[in-house]
Amino acid sequence: MNPYPDKVYLNGKIVPSKEATISVFDRGFLFGDGIYEVMVQIGNRFFYEEEHLQRLKYCLSEINIAYNVDLLRKEIPLLVQQTNLVGKDCLLYIQVSRGVAPRQHAYPKNTTPTVMMYALPKVLPDINTVRASVVTAEDMRWLRCDIKMTSLLGNVMANEYAMQNGCYETVLVRNGVVTEASHCNVFFVKNAVVYTHPANTFILDGITRKIVLQLCKKLNIKVEETAVLKADIKHMDEAFLTGTSTQIASIQQIDDHLFYQDKAVGSITQRLQNAFLELKSR
Amino acid sequence: MNPYPDKVYLNGKIVPSKEATISVFDRGFLFGDGIYEVMVQIGNRFFYEEEHLQRLKYCLSEINIAYNVDLLRKEIPLLVQQTNLVGKDCLLYIQVSRGVAPRQHAYPKNTTPTVMMYALPKVLPDINTVRASVVTAEDMRWLRCDIKMTSLLGNVMANEYAMQNGCYETVLVRNGVVTEASHCNVFFVKNAVVYTHPANTFILDGITRKIVLQLCKKLNIKVEETAVLKADIKHMDEAFLTGTSTQIASIQQIDDHLFYQDKAVGSITQRLQNAFLELKSR
Repeated sequence: MNPYPDKVYLNGKIVPSKEATISVFDRGFLFGDGIYEVMVQIGNRFFYEEEHLQRLKYCLSEINIAYNVDLLRKEIPLLVQQTNLVGKDCLLYIQVSRGVAPRQHAYPKNTTPTVMMYALPKVLPDINTVRASVVTAEDMRWLRCDIKMTSLLGNVMANEYAMQNGCYETVLVRNGVVTEASHCNVFFVKNAVVYTHPANTFILDGITRKIVLQLCKKLNIKVEETAVLKADIKHMDEAFLTGTSTQIASIQQIDDHLFYQDKAVGSITQRLQNAFLELKSR
Repeated sequence: MNPYPDKVYLNGKIVPSKEATISVFDRGFLFGDGIYEVMVQIGNRFFYEEEHLQRLKYCLSEINIAYNVDLLRKEIPLLVQQTNLVGKDCLLYIQVSRGVAPRQHAYPKNTTPTVMMYALPKVLPDINTVRASVVTAEDMRWLRCDIKMTSLLGNVMANEYAMQNGCYETVLVRNGVVTEASHCNVFFVKNAVVYTHPANTFILDGITRKIVLQLCKKLNIKVEETAVLKADIKHMDEAFLTGTSTQIASIQQIDDHLFYQDKAVGSITQRLQNAFLELKSR
């Protein structure tokens, strides 16, 4: 299977992937000066599309890229149509960079943003059956992790570290507390209370993270948006990851600490997975 | 004057700027997954070329991009020649990204790096006569600032902050200590001792920074590679910035603290500027 999409949306045109090229002077290439989003189409709709588009707006505004995200509401259906993915499960990647300009750090005003999107067929499992083994590493990223930017080398290196250790993800630890993972949010459960890092500038406030918090409320599961100490991981009853493609993935093991044997999954993780499936199936 | 170069070196070919395009799937564009260098040709030679190439090697190796930097020793002269810059003062930009691959954080092995270079005429002043006003801001960047990567959004935002304040640079402060500036190193002088942040993972070890340290030794100026507290800035006698294009620039003012009136420059700053000029003129 071709790992690249057949077609790419680039600045208003839908072109064959091989023709989707940008100038080397695009600030996305020179400075990682851009924002991205990933969302999934399940059946006939993009799951929580509005939340993804709102986050894209927020992030673009945080770094002063002037692009009218609402334009995408017409462009996305065109791309889906021309990629033959109408009504089919797929993943949509959106990237908006500041555009082309002579290289200097401070950004010129009035550049035309570069908008790139592609869709790839992707059927997510009803429930993510992964029993994830994860490693921890120091969170070396910058202090504005709430911005979903394309300056991702820190995340790349963290994710690569997981792969090198044969693991599913790297759980990041800053000043002794668990923040998030290289491209997922992290949750813990202790005595039937769900813990996750507060949505401040140290983490990306994932859409699936928000959904899980809503599901907890609906299921009368108590939530504390409080960071968990790395040293307390071994005292936790359950742990799981959330993300747009990851959905809700049980963590079986963090470093040397084994949460469950075999195929077991924590009961609250399981309840949330079931509730999430129900939400998707609506 | 055209702010873009006429020609760009891209993966072994020298092409007109407008034809210098890369795939949107280049990891330099998707992830800021690349390393760069900037050096200047003064007269017939690139100033401290070897140090720049060695740093490029170091940084590429730190993020596991397999590119043989020594190849550039033949490619740079070709570019300079075809850009009609033989023997002329110019700036050379070099960027090596990990290359094109389907998007996923962890990097595939065996991608072909994308190598891009361009040269632009640039005559540096004998001595930088700028009297820089700078602002301070929190250093929000990641914890591997020793890697000269293209994931530069943190630096972009810091530099933009200087421009918005009508300043020359933004001096970054992490946990109360001055690290460096958005694209320069920072030095202070107090009681005839030169202070600068040690070359660890919190700063980029600038080539001009190294040169200044060597010049101090030669001039019998005492150096302490010790970070200066932001709170102590007002007690310093002199302050200056260093960088490949900046050379040595006197700082006249940091936030509300004025070091000198009018066109005055600290005596040690001046001695170093003169010694640096001598070095260039050799």
